Amino acid sequence: MSKEITSRAADYSQWYNDLILKGELADYSAVRGCMVIKPYGFALWENMRDALDKMFKDTGHVNAYFPLFVPKSLFEAEEKNAEGFAKECAIVTHYRLKNDPNNKGKLMVDPEAKLEEELIIRPTSEAIIWNTYKGWIQSYRDLPLLINQWANVVRWEMRTRLFLRTAEFLWQEGHTAHATKEEALEETVKMLNVYADFAENWMAVPVIKGVKSANERFAGAEDTYCIEALMQDGKALQAGTSHFLGQNFAKAFDVKFSDKENKLEYVWATSWGVSTRLIGALVMAHSDDQGLILPPRIAPLQVVIVPIYKGDDQKAVIDQKVNEISKELKAAGIRVKYDDNDNNRPGWKFAEYEMKGVPVRLAIGARDLEKNVVEIARRDTKEKMVVTLDGVAQYVQSLLEEIQQNMFNKAKTFRDEHITPANSWDEFEKLLDEKGGFVAAHWDGTSETEEAIKEKTKATIRCIPLDNEKEAGSCILTGKPSEQRVLFARAY
Amino acid sequence: MSKEITSRAADYSQWYNDLILKGELADYSAVRGCMVIKPYGFALWENMRDALDKMFKDTGHVNAYFPLFVPKSLFEAEEKNAEGFAKECAIVTHYRLKNDPNNKGKLMVDPEAKLEEELIIRPTSEAIIWNTYKGWIQSYRDLPLLINQWANVVRWEMRTRLFLRTAEFLWQEGHTAHATKEEALEETVKMLNVYADFAENWMAVPVIKGVKSANERFAGAEDTYCIEALMQDGKALQAGTSHFLGQNFAKAFDVKFSDKENKLEYVWATSWGVSTRLIGALVMAHSDDQGLILPPRIAPLQVVIVPIYKGDDQKAVIDQKVNEISKELKAAGIRVKYDDNDNNRPGWKFAEYEMKGVPVRLAIGARDLEKNVVEIARRDTKEKMVVTLDGVAQYVQSLLEEIQQNMFNKAKTFRDEHITPANSWDEFEKLLDEKGGFVAAHWDGTSETEEAIKEKTKATIRCIPLDNEKEAGSCILTGKPSEQRVLFARAY
Repeated sequence: MSKEITSRAADYSQWYNDLILKGELADYSAVRGCMVIKPYGFALWENMRDALDKMFKDTGHVNAYFPLFVPKSLFEAEEKNAEGFAKECAIVTHYRLKNDPNNKGKLMVDPEAKLEEELIIRPTSEAIIWNTYKGWIQSYRDLPLLINQWANVVRWEMRTRLFLRTAEFLWQEGHTAHATKEEALEETVKMLNVYADFAENWMAVPVIKGVKSANERFAGAEDTYCIEALMQDGKALQAGTSHFLGQNFAKAFDVKFSDKENKLEYVWATSWGVSTRLIGALVMAHSDDQGLILPPRIAPLQVVIVPIYKGDDQKAVIDQKVNEISKELKAAGIRVKYDDNDNNRPGWKFAEYEMKGVPVRLAIGARDLEKNVVEIARRDTKEKMVVTLDGVAQYVQSLLEEIQQNMFNKAKTFRDEHITPANSWDEFEKLLDEKGGFVAAHWDGTSETEEAIKEKTKATIRCIPLDNEKEAGSCILTGKPSEQRVLFARAY
Repeated sequence: MSKEITSRAADYSQWYNDLILKGELADYSAVRGCMVIKPYGFALWENMRDALDKMFKDTGHVNAYFPLFVPKSLFEAEEKNAEGFAKECAIVTHYRLKNDPNNKGKLMVDPEAKLEEELIIRPTSEAIIWNTYKGWIQSYRDLPLLINQWANVVRWEMRTRLFLRTAEFLWQEGHTAHATKEEALEETVKMLNVYADFAENWMAVPVIKGVKSANERFAGAEDTYCIEALMQDGKALQAGTSHFLGQNFAKAFDVKFSDKENKLEYVWATSWGVSTRLIGALVMAHSDDQGLILPPRIAPLQVVIVPIYKGDDQKAVIDQKVNEISKELKAAGIRVKYDDNDNNRPGWKFAEYEMKGVPVRLAIGARDLEKNVVEIARRDTKEKMVVTLDGVAQYVQSLLEEIQQNMFNKAKTFRDEHITPANSWDEFEKLLDEKGGFVAAHWDGTSETEEAIKEKTKATIRCIPLDNEKEAGSCILTGKPSEQRVLFARAY
C-alpha cells in the first residue's frame, strides 16, 4: 500500500515527513526551501487563523496590511534587529527581465533595470511598520495602536523542514504602540496568554509560558516571552513569541508623541507572532504510526461517514439515513463528509481517514440499519463503539468534545512526565540523552554559560517559566550561585 | 477643517486620492508604488474577501498556498505569459546582507550570496502552480482540480495609484484543471458569473459581462472573459477577469492525464482573479464630494450612533437607550458603533462618518428620548428622518437593504445612460470626449484597427458583451464590414 508510513521508532524525522506528505498537508515545491500548502493543510490553517483572528479582535486589535518590501535603509535602522536578520534575507535588486540575446526563448535579468536601493523581502515587519507609525502617531490620543497583520515572510534558512522551518512561511504579526512602558508590558503578556489559550484549548497542545534568556531573545527586543511545547520525541518547540520592544523601534524611527502635559516622549512597542510552524507542532504532538490525529476544534473534517453496502438498493436506504444524520450534524455546526465514492473500498477509506486524522468515523451498513445502530470509531484512541441511531448527532457532538479533552490530557500527562529536575552535570546530560523533555536545572544567569551548555549538549534554555519558584542553588555547569531553575531542552 | 476634500468637478483624480487618504482606507508607504492598507480599508477588504471566499467554496473550490517565488526557468516556460509579465517583474538575486566595510553600521548585499538561479516574485502564479499540478495529476480521477489562492503579487508598474494600480497588491487567483475543453469553458463562465454576482449584489456596482479582444487578452490565455464597470467620470474599469487557458500551460509544463480509455491527454485550464483594485472601483462608482459612500453589505461599519447631550445625567439616559438599540442591532447581525468619545463634538463626528461612508447614522438627544424618537440619516441620499424608537432596529435593518438597492439602482441608471451607439467616426470621438462612458460601435475585428483607434482616442475595446446582438454594420474607423457592435471606452 502506497500510503504506509515510517514508524516513530524507526525514524522519527521520516515519520514526520511521511505524515505531512501522505496526510496531504503540504508538498515540496520547485523553490528551494519553500513548500506548497495543500488544500487539506490550508483548511487546517484557515481554522487556526480564524480562531486566532477572533481572539485578536476580541482583545481590541484590528488588521491592516503593510508592504512586502523593506528598503535597505529602513531595514538597517534598528541595528540589532538588522543584524539578527541580515544573514537570512532575500533581496530584490532588479525590476525587469529582458530577452536573452544569446539564448533564444529565454529571459535574463535586465542590467539596466537595477534598483537604486535594494529591497529586502520582509523577514518580519517592525521596520516598515514603525516607519509608517511615525506618520500616524502625534499625540497620546493616537495611542494605543493595536494592529495585526496576516502575511507571508521570508527567512533564507539553510536547513529547511516542511512547516517547521521554511524559507517562506505564513504568519501573523501584531505590532502595537503604547504611551507607557506598563501598558506595553501588559500587552506583551496579554498576547502571550492569548497564544497559550489557543495552543491548549484549540490545538490541545499544553504549553509552558515563560521568558527567554538574552541569547534566545528576538533581535531588537528588550524581552521575549514565549510558549514552549513538547513533542513526542522529547524535543521542545517554540510555538509562539511575544516581544516587549521597549522604545528601541521608536528611537530608530523617531516616533514620538505628545503626552497629556504636552511633553514629547518616545512610544513603547510590542510585537508578537505565530506561524504555520504551529502545524508542525500539532502534527508532532499528537499523531501516531497510522497517521495524523487532529484535534476536533480545528480539524478540517470532524466526522466522515462511510457506507458499507452491496448493490444500489442497500445504498439507497443508507443514503437516506446518512442524509438525515448529516443534516443534524451540520445543524450542530459539525464539519461532516459523506464519502460514498465507489472507486474505493471501505477498508481503503478507513485507512485514508485515519491517515488524515479525522477525529470521528461513522461506518453504516445495511445490517446496522436494520438494528438501528451505527459503528463509531474515534481516531485518538482507535476505540470502536456500536451506538443506537437515535440521538446519534448529540452523541457525536459530545464525543468530539471528549476527544478534544482527551488529546489535551494525554499530551499534558506526557509533557508533565517530561519535566525533570537535574542536580548534577552527569544527571543533566543523562536526562537529555536518555529521557529527553525539559530538564529543570540551575544556571548562573550568564550568556557564556548558556552558550557553553549548548555546545556541550545541543540543549538551550527554552524559557524561565513565568510562574517559576525561587530556589537557591548552584549552576549545573559552573557551580556559581543561582536563584531559580530554568528549563533546558533540545529543540526544533 | 483638515478633512476637506477636493470636489469631483475641480479635480476628479485628486478627489479620488483625498477619499482614499482621508477616508482612511490606505496610505502611501516608503516603498515605491506600494501602499499600506489601513485598518478601515482592510476591514472593507476582509468583508469583500469573506463574501467571495464563501462563493468560491459554495461552487466547489478549495484554498491552497503556493510559493511567492517563481524560479526563472519556470517563469519562462510558457512563452506568451512570460513575455507579458517580463517587463514588470521584481527579481530576487541574493539571499544575504553583510556589514558594509566602508560604511559603519550599514549593510550591503553580500556578493558571495548570489543565487544560482534568479527568483521572480509572482506577478501571477500559473507557472509555479502548473509546475506543481504536474505532480498531482495522473488520471482523470484526479480531475477537476478546483483550487483558489489568496495572496500578494507584485507587478512593477511605472505609474501607480492607490488601490487601482500598485506594485504589490492583494488578490485571489483561481487555478483549475479539467479533463475536457467544455468543462474548462464552463468553469471560466461560471466564475465570471460569480464575479458579476459579487460586484452587483455586494458592491452595488453594475457590470457588463463580456469577452476581451485579442489585444486585451491575458498573456497565455486563449480567451479572457471580464466584467467591466463604469466610474462616475465616464471611464471604464476592468473589475475582474476569468481566463480560458486552453492547454497552453499543460503543454508548457507537460501536464497530462490518462483518460477513461487510458489515453494520455493534456489537461485543460482556467484561471480567474479579482484584487484590491475592486476597492478603487467601489470608491469611484459611489462616492460624492463629502466622502465615501459604502454599500451596507460590505461596509466595515453599517450604523454609527452619536449621542447629543449636555452633562452626565443626560448622557446616562442616552447611554442606556443606546445600549438597548445596539444590542438589538447586533442581534440582527448589524455592525454598529456607539461613538461617545467626548473629545469630539457631534458636528465633527457627523462629518467624519460621512467621510468614511457609514451607511446609516443615528443621532440621539435628550429631547428625542422624551419624545421617544431618534433622528436617522442615510449616507447615500443624505436624507434625514425622525423615527419612533419602537422597532427602530427593524427600521434600520430594512433601511440598510434599501440603501444597498438604491446604490445599485443609481449606479445602474448612470451606467445605462452611458452606453451610447456611435455610427460615424466624428460621433465616436465626440462621445468619448464629451459624454464618456461606453461607446457601442462597429469594429472590423482586427488588432491593427483596435490599436489605431487606441492611438487616436486612448479608447480601447472593453469587451464584446456576452449577450451581444448580431447586427451588420461597418467599422467605425476602416468602414470594413462588421457583424456586431463592441464596447469602447477610456479606462483605468
